Amino acid sequence: MSLQAILFDAYGTLFDVYAISAEAERQFPGQGTTLANLWRDKQIEYTRLRTLSGTYQPFDQVTRDALQFACSKLGLTLDQSVQERLMAQYNQLTPFPENLSVLHELKREGMALAILSNGNPDMLDPVVKAAGMEGVFTHVISAHRVKKFKTAPEVYQLGLDLLGVAVYNSLFVSSNGWDICGAAWFGYRTFWVNRAAAPREVLGVSPDGEGRSLHDLLQFVRQREEH
Amino acid sequence: MSLQAILFDAYGTLFDVYAISAEAERQFPGQGTTLANLWRDKQIEYTRLRTLSGTYQPFDQVTRDALQFACSKLGLTLDQSVQERLMAQYNQLTPFPENLSVLHELKREGMALAILSNGNPDMLDPVVKAAGMEGVFTHVISAHRVKKFKTAPEVYQLGLDLLGVAVYNSLFVSSNGWDICGAAWFGYRTFWVNRAAAPREVLGVSPDGEGRSLHDLLQFVRQREEH
Repeated sequence: MSLQAILFDAYGTLFDVYAISAEAERQFPGQGTTLANLWRDKQIEYTRLRTLSGTYQPFDQVTRDALQFACSKLGLTLDQSVQERLMAQYNQLTPFPENLSVLHELKREGMALAILSNGNPDMLDPVVKAAGMEGVFTHVISAHRVKKFKTAPEVYQLGLDLLGVAVYNSLFVSSNGWDICGAAWFGYRTFWVNRAAAPREVLGVSPDGEGRSLHDLLQFVRQREEH
Repeated sequence: MSLQAILFDAYGTLFDVYAISAEAERQFPGQGTTLANLWRDKQIEYTRLRTLSGTYQPFDQVTRDALQFACSKLGLTLDQSVQERLMAQYNQLTPFPENLSVLHELKREGMALAILSNGNPDMLDPVVKAAGMEGVFTHVISAHRVKKFKTAPEVYQLGLDLLGVAVYNSLFVSSNGWDICGAAWFGYRTFWVNRAAAPREVLGVSPDGEGRSLHDLLQFVRQREEH
């Protein structure tokens, strides 16, 4: 293949979501990790239920709803100021340490780079800006355009439509195993940034490449180009 | 409303899935509950991913895949005989203790009763038979007919099409909060058998009735009929 474009998932792939559990721990000592995990699971669950049932709400609303459920489930009182403080973390997530340098390297290799995320623009724009990544991406693409969340094919299609590239010239990169499966089912080449060393999903598809950080992605891309 | 038909979810609603974690505990002492919970979560996740991406596989296959993932994740070795033993539990689940008598009462009230489940017929038929429920239901309806899983609207539509009832004359009953939301979004009246005393999902819809067992459902139906 001749690789022309690389599309990145945002949360957990480019941006480290650790700050969220750290803030959760500050607000609810001893329960931060439990709350953050349940919140994240519920957030993803709600994106899927709303997409399946055709009842889309923007990702920030879904994220608030998931936070409320997670607190109810754990018996934690969530007042308005705590909710705002936790939600505000999403606007100032830091990129993983290797990301900016690798992204610049990939650009020098001639790749078009884009974000393809479930986040709505109101969530994505501040975090891209805060991370100093504004000039890096040709497109910051939100699932909000089609009012469905990944893994709906319409979301993955957005990447091709907006970048104007063919699927076989495109690589999709995510830290989420399920996102990799969705993209592979859709037809993308895929690279799984398996930061958590998780087992592969048993869904009948495999990533084309796998590594632990964006350094491994850079190596994968360079090896592909040599052939 | 004039209630004419009641549709039931199967696993966890009519049939007690406790036997699965009990068998998991026999196979993997000390990890039975963890395995059973992870297995169940993954099973549901895979139904959603496959429905979103249009890569349907029957529920028994999805269930096997989820079991393999769950064992990998927990570092448990799953040999073929253990896999078969765990899967076999699905064919011999017992109904919750109150179920048969309540179902018979509801029939005497003139209700048409049906199952509407993600399970494929090869999974549903044996468990309905083993539970002595063969004569109770006019229809045992599987999502397999439309090759999508709940909460896809096509699955909920099946219930109306096959029973020949209007949605406003129908009640959907499930122990799963998300299933209740999917059915309510679709348009059903809903009754949540909240056996686990879970908090409500934060999805903008509420069940019409809620209780802890099918006894509470019977009371709900009788109260509605009096009005």
